[in-house]
Amino acid sequence: MKRFTKETYKKSGMSPGSLIHIGDKKIEQPLISFFNYDEANCMEKQDASMENISPVNTSDLTAWININGIHDAGVIEAIGKHYNIHALTLEDIMHTGQRPKVEEFEDYLYVVIKMLTFEEGQDKIHSEQVSFILGDNFLVSFQENHGDVFDAVRERIRKAKGRIRKKKADYLLYALMDAIVDNYFLILESLGDRIESLEEEMLGTSHQTTLVTLHNIKQELIFFRRQVWHVRDFLNVLEKGDKPFFQESTTLFLRDLHDHTVQVIDAIESYRDLLTGMQDLSLSHTSARMNEVMKILTIISTIFIPITFLAGVYGMNFKLMPEIDKPWAYPAFWLIVIVVILGMVFFFRRKKWL
Amino acid sequence: MKRFTKETYKKSGMSPGSLIHIGDKKIEQPLISFFNYDEANCMEKQDASMENISPVNTSDLTAWININGIHDAGVIEAIGKHYNIHALTLEDIMHTGQRPKVEEFEDYLYVVIKMLTFEEGQDKIHSEQVSFILGDNFLVSFQENHGDVFDAVRERIRKAKGRIRKKKADYLLYALMDAIVDNYFLILESLGDRIESLEEEMLGTSHQTTLVTLHNIKQELIFFRRQVWHVRDFLNVLEKGDKPFFQESTTLFLRDLHDHTVQVIDAIESYRDLLTGMQDLSLSHTSARMNEVMKILTIISTIFIPITFLAGVYGMNFKLMPEIDKPWAYPAFWLIVIVVILGMVFFFRRKKWL
Amino acid sequence: MKRFTKETYKKSGMSPGSLIHIGDKKIEQPLISFFNYDEANCMEKQDASMENISPVNTSDLTAWININGIHDAGVIEAIGKHYNIHALTLEDIMHTGQRPKVEEFEDYLYVVIKMLTFEEGQDKIHSEQVSFILGDNFLVSFQENHGDVFDAVRERIRKAKGRIRKKKADYLLYALMDAIVDNYFLILESLGDRIESLEEEMLGTSHQTTLVTLHNIKQELIFFRRQVWHVRDFLNVLEKGDKPFFQESTTLFLRDLHDHTVQVIDAIESYRDLLTGMQDLSLSHTSARMNEVMKILTIISTIFIPITFLAGVYGMNFKLMPEIDKPWAYPAFWLIVIVVILGMVFFFRRKKWL
Amino acid sequence: MKRFTKETYKKSGMSPGSLIHIGDKKIEQPLISFFNYDEANCMEKQDASMENISPVNTSDLTAWININGIHDAGVIEAIGKHYNIHALTLEDIMHTGQRPKVEEFEDYLYVVIKMLTFEEGQDKIHSEQVSFILGDNFLVSFQENHGDVFDAVRERIRKAKGRIRKKKADYLLYALMDAIVDNYFLILESLGDRIESLEEEMLGTSHQTTLVTLHNIKQELIFFRRQVWHVRDFLNVLEKGDKPFFQESTTLFLRDLHDHTVQVIDAIESYRDLLTGMQDLSLSHTSARMNEVMKILTIISTIFIPITFLAGVYGMNFKLMPEIDKPWAYPAFWLIVIVVILGMVFFFRRKKWL
Amino acid sequence: MKRFTKETYKKSGMSPGSLIHIGDKKIEQPLISFFNYDEANCMEKQDASMENISPVNTSDLTAWININGIHDAGVIEAIGKHYNIHALTLEDIMHTGQRPKVEEFEDYLYVVIKMLTFEEGQDKIHSEQVSFILGDNFLVSFQENHGDVFDAVRERIRKAKGRIRKKKADYLLYALMDAIVDNYFLILESLGDRIESLEEEMLGTSHQTTLVTLHNIKQELIFFRRQVWHVRDFLNVLEKGDKPFFQESTTLFLRDLHDHTVQVIDAIESYRDLLTGMQDLSLSHTSARMNEVMKILTIISTIFIPITFLAGVYGMNFKLMPEIDKPWAYPAFWLIVIVVILGMVFFFRRKKWL
Repeated sequence: MKRFTKETYKKSGMSPGSLIHIGDKKIEQPLISFFNYDEANCMEKQDASMENISPVNTSDLTAWININGIHDAGVIEAIGKHYNIHALTLEDIMHTGQRPKVEEFEDYLYVVIKMLTFEEGQDKIHSEQVSFILGDNFLVSFQENHGDVFDAVRERIRKAKGRIRKKKADYLLYALMDAIVDNYFLILESLGDRIESLEEEMLGTSHQTTLVTLHNIKQELIFFRRQVWHVRDFLNVLEKGDKPFFQESTTLFLRDLHDHTVQVIDAIESYRDLLTGMQDLSLSHTSARMNEVMKILTIISTIFIPITFLAGVYGMNFKLMPEIDKPWAYPAFWLIVIVVILGMVFFFRRKKWL
Repeated sequence: MKRFTKETYKKSGMSPGSLIHIGDKKIEQPLISFFNYDEANCMEKQDASMENISPVNTSDLTAWININGIHDAGVIEAIGKHYNIHALTLEDIMHTGQRPKVEEFEDYLYVVIKMLTFEEGQDKIHSEQVSFILGDNFLVSFQENHGDVFDAVRERIRKAKGRIRKKKADYLLYALMDAIVDNYFLILESLGDRIESLEEEMLGTSHQTTLVTLHNIKQELIFFRRQVWHVRDFLNVLEKGDKPFFQESTTLFLRDLHDHTVQVIDAIESYRDLLTGMQDLSLSHTSARMNEVMKILTIISTIFIPITFLAGVYGMNFKLMPEIDKPWAYPAFWLIVIVVILGMVFFFRRKKWL
Repeated sequence: MKRFTKETYKKSGMSPGSLIHIGDKKIEQPLISFFNYDEANCMEKQDASMENISPVNTSDLTAWININGIHDAGVIEAIGKHYNIHALTLEDIMHTGQRPKVEEFEDYLYVVIKMLTFEEGQDKIHSEQVSFILGDNFLVSFQENHGDVFDAVRERIRKAKGRIRKKKADYLLYALMDAIVDNYFLILESLGDRIESLEEEMLGTSHQTTLVTLHNIKQELIFFRRQVWHVRDFLNVLEKGDKPFFQESTTLFLRDLHDHTVQVIDAIESYRDLLTGMQDLSLSHTSARMNEVMKILTIISTIFIPITFLAGVYGMNFKLMPEIDKPWAYPAFWLIVIVVILGMVFFFRRKKWL
Repeated sequence: MKRFTKETYKKSGMSPGSLIHIGDKKIEQPLISFFNYDEANCMEKQDASMENISPVNTSDLTAWININGIHDAGVIEAIGKHYNIHALTLEDIMHTGQRPKVEEFEDYLYVVIKMLTFEEGQDKIHSEQVSFILGDNFLVSFQENHGDVFDAVRERIRKAKGRIRKKKADYLLYALMDAIVDNYFLILESLGDRIESLEEEMLGTSHQTTLVTLHNIKQELIFFRRQVWHVRDFLNVLEKGDKPFFQESTTLFLRDLHDHTVQVIDAIESYRDLLTGMQDLSLSHTSARMNEVMKILTIISTIFIPITFLAGVYGMNFKLMPEIDKPWAYPAFWLIVIVVILGMVFFFRRKKWL
Repeated sequence: MKRFTKETYKKSGMSPGSLIHIGDKKIEQPLISFFNYDEANCMEKQDASMENISPVNTSDLTAWININGIHDAGVIEAIGKHYNIHALTLEDIMHTGQRPKVEEFEDYLYVVIKMLTFEEGQDKIHSEQVSFILGDNFLVSFQENHGDVFDAVRERIRKAKGRIRKKKADYLLYALMDAIVDNYFLILESLGDRIESLEEEMLGTSHQTTLVTLHNIKQELIFFRRQVWHVRDFLNVLEKGDKPFFQESTTLFLRDLHDHTVQVIDAIESYRDLLTGMQDLSLSHTSARMNEVMKILTIISTIFIPITFLAGVYGMNFKLMPEIDKPWAYPAFWLIVIVVILGMVFFFRRKKWL
């Protein structure tokens, strides 16, 4: 639940643009690292401090500054001052309850996106907010925590694989977003496997716990869909090429990325339809089973209740029961019992219950 | 229910623009207070009268006139004349059944928005209508009652915190709307907590009362969503910057505010999905429980009805029942009983009922 | 049902523009009345004939001709000729199955709207079609029957209250539509009260009749919503100000009216959501009650069936039942009965049925 | 089912534009008839051959060629050559699975629409495809079978009723489409009557057959709605007046026709809502009835099971049952029985089951 | 499930534009074949190698190169270099999880579409991805496997049937897409037959397996619809004629193709509505049957439980039961039994259970 509100009360009444971290503090000390590269050169620095990154901005190289940890207002403010970032943007960076979005400012483009991971045991999708500031020749990325899906991109920069070193900061932003969206496919797959196993569980005895799991996974899909939906929306805008921070040649890649998000949403929708279908099926299973239970009860009762009555009758102690002394009485009783049973069986056969 | 119609019959047949208060009279005497400030100066007056506010309008300072209590047609009309407000606007101000909206007039912008509060005990969202008249260098706000969410803004004006004293009346309007929307997040949180506790209740024994509460909270969400939806709509229009009463620089803040409303609506939608899921789950719980009840009844009945019949048979008083005198008869009866019971247990095992 | 088709077969195969009245004939004799006014003068004539109204059209005054009764093709045709009205418009006026709409013709604007009334006893919304022909300085209104919601407007014209006498025919049209829409709020309120009382009924014992009523009211809401929806649509178009028959100053009033229809639709939607929620609740109530019934049956059966069997056993007449002669046998029987009962009670306690 | 696919496999793999009839052959021999008229003259010919119609095309009169029977590729091709019709259009004419649509070609406008009839006994809507080729001064109409709804139009042409003889081929097309759409109202009415009678059936004992009928009628409504929906769509386009084959003056009539389709769709939607409501109601009826059945069973069982047990107890043959010899025992037994019954009745009263 | 994700993890972290085949390898060796034709000449080559196809590109003839098998990065890359295809396109060709789409590049148009087949026994729709590269005078098509629906097109090229040899590569692309979409109608028909047989199954005894099949077919329809939906979308764009790779004259054919996809989607929607209706019907059947079962149980129980009690009473061994010795007692007992039975029958008659 908290995932939707992110304890926003800390902020209520604050002046807009106040730098207050909202979210869980997932890391002790903000960690700054940076790349500085063009086609020929590539410099990398882990564990940098604010002073280190100062001069890069003026050079002709592309600079990628990555900050892990967004709870320290001092660091965020320093970077904000360094790159001339609007107070509202800084506030959004520190506030982890953002929806994925793109905002254009005069000097930079601000992009928020969620890095998602699926915890199999818990059937939960965890999200980490990643913010990007895309300027003319630099990209600043903010993550909540250590660990990300960018290692393949880093490797490509280091080893000059693909076209990344030949391109500018806008392509870097694309490459990072691409890594995040590619990771969404992994989640899709985990979810797909989970649903498949649920489907099998269901064909066995439908435990009520299956339905609860199904309900939970549906909620996760709703959360997932909402995240990707917003990403798709802003990629659709970026792809149209009317944003000044993207080169023409990168637009093709954005189109490709947009296409991926459409695929993810398609799959999520399919999963939701499938889960809804499974719920309906489970409901009708339950009611069919109930029907069967009722039938057995009714068959047994309907057969035995009349003949039990008959047995009761001849257990009565009336003095004057003429048939009781007849020798044929007892066999006659059993005859009647058999006739009743056969009649009932015939009746249920005709009703297709047996 | 009344929340949707607000006893509008008082108005039917009136000439449009008639000043009739529609709503509950929540306050005895309208209370006027005002701020008058620029970057250097700040004057504040509580409990002002109409005469006090007369001259401020012509000065270069930004004036914020706040009126608590909207049931007195005389006061509203005086202010209307003072600021040249259209009769239809005055009518809307006094009529508390407005939906949130923005209307542009020649001399001013008219904004209606709802201040919402969540009463935990009652699971009810209460709303108070706030109207704003934004002119060139003044802002008039109308509230139904004492008490609002603007104290933090007032403090910022008094102490010149943030950028509020450097900006004009349009930024003040933004700041006040921001305070109202920020407050929506508090309601979200209360609702989130409430739903979470409901979810736990449900996992225990599903009392029918839980479903009623769930139904009520769903209605509140519908009401809430409707309110925020309209706010989002008009902020979307304002953000586009085509309204003459907002400075370019304020537009960025409106975009931020718009974004907040989108977040609130996202969360409300998620809550609704969640509640619907919970209802479905509760229904399937009920039907699963019924199934279990039926099974127990059927098992017990199916086992005992046949053997009770048998006991009945040998309770009959027929003279000629050959087996009744045999010494092995009674043990044989018990043997049959045990065989029937074991057979039934085996049958139910195979049906996976046991 | 008839409300959707209005016996249209009378028309099939007719040439388009044929003047055939379709609908119930609600009045014997068409009744023409008219107002003729400007700011200074006001002339009123009840029970006018076609000749009376002839000259007014050329004067500078605003003329409002009201016709009650639309079944007489002769009268309609005469007026059509008088004001140069297109045959298709005349056909629509006489055909009471119109949806609310605005149609622009060269010389006039044609507006259809429904006057609605709620019959409390029957839970039915009755509708009467009102057509308006708005020309340069005249307005012709057609009603199906005597009695309308325009008396307040007539009074305002007679007594020169408000701005109506200062304005032209377009404002008059607005005022009349405003009166009709204001009346919608009354229906909303009646519906609101009805739903509230239904909600209370439901909390008591849910009679099946409540569900039928609920179903009926839902149908009425669907009908109501459809009517207002079309009105909202065309007001939205008119408000944009691109229709030549409205003065700029009236546009503000149309915006206000449009806003009212949005409010009505909002309320109707809320009612529908509420009714749907109530239906769901009622369904889950029924199923919860069934569950309870089943539990009681199961508890009673499960306790008594085994001990009844035991009693049956010792009612058997076997010669050789050793325990039957023992003095402790009868108390032992009761002991077993008590143990079974306590065991069952314990079992049901653990299952939380008791 | 076939109605959606129309045995399209006959065509798979064919070159586009191949003239293969797809649909049921409803007529033996194609039948050509034509009208040739202007305001002064009117010539009519039944049972014409291709040679007859050859010269008309060049004259100044309006020509309406009607072909009943579309299975003969030779005839269709001859007409196609005569009027210079694109191969794709000819293919569409012979393929009866078209959706209603308008297609503009260089020399003509191609319109497809469905003539619908409701077979009361079967609750089925049957459809016949009608294609129109509208050229500058001619209209060719293709029907699948004899018999149509155009007789009134033919009569109007013959007797010069209305404005049809004064107008051109575009008005004729309008008049024919108008006749088809007018006929839709008849279907609406039949459906309305059918639903009304179903509603009454339902208030009696809800036979399962009623639900099946309801399901079938819902399918018919879906089919009906789909047909009218497409008609509405293309009329909306035509009405805008941007199609070269319509004169300005006809546009008003198209608007009227468009309005009729909106009314039909409105009514269909209302019917669907109504049917859905009826289904829900029927479901809740069933479950309410089940509840009642269960209550009766439970009341009877709960009262008699305990006292039957008691009777069983005193039917036991234990030697030592002290109370059995007491003279007050039998009356005491009845006393207990009465107390149990009264207690149960009281209990059920309190539960509001009685 | 896999159908939605296509094991995309193989790609995560790769540089965009990497040539990795994703999907099942369905074929051992890629097989290249080509056509080279104009109106006069036609050359065909099966089993061609890359060298064979080299020169064709420069000639004036239309070249159609078809590749079966897309798992060999070497072949794909060679073709990519040959026709100057963007790396992202090559990646998409090898990645079988594409949604149907059109992408415009500077030198060519890239089209992806799915060839679908319905496996009757399994009720499964299988899909094979087909990619097209449309250049100025060439078309390259990529299929996953041998076997396609293009044989009729090949025959038309070989024998110069229809207009295909007179037209360019854009018409060829249309013809191939037309063949694929025509094939969709076959699937529609198989689905229609399947649903019809399900409907009949349902009218008999509703086996739970029918519902599972119904659920599965619904999933297939969702998959089918998604595929056609995307095709319809891009055809709508192509039809508008703003894509440079299509000649004006081909646009008419694209419109026709677009129309076919609309028909397919219409039919799919109808099927879905039908299936949903069948599910509802099946549910209400189940609950009606349960109702009937309950009624029989209740009737039998309610009749026999009271009289069994009575029999129990007179089976008691109380010493002092005055009525037991009376000669009229036993007949009186039977009289009471008959009265009770008749009373019950009368009661159930009045409740319309019998």
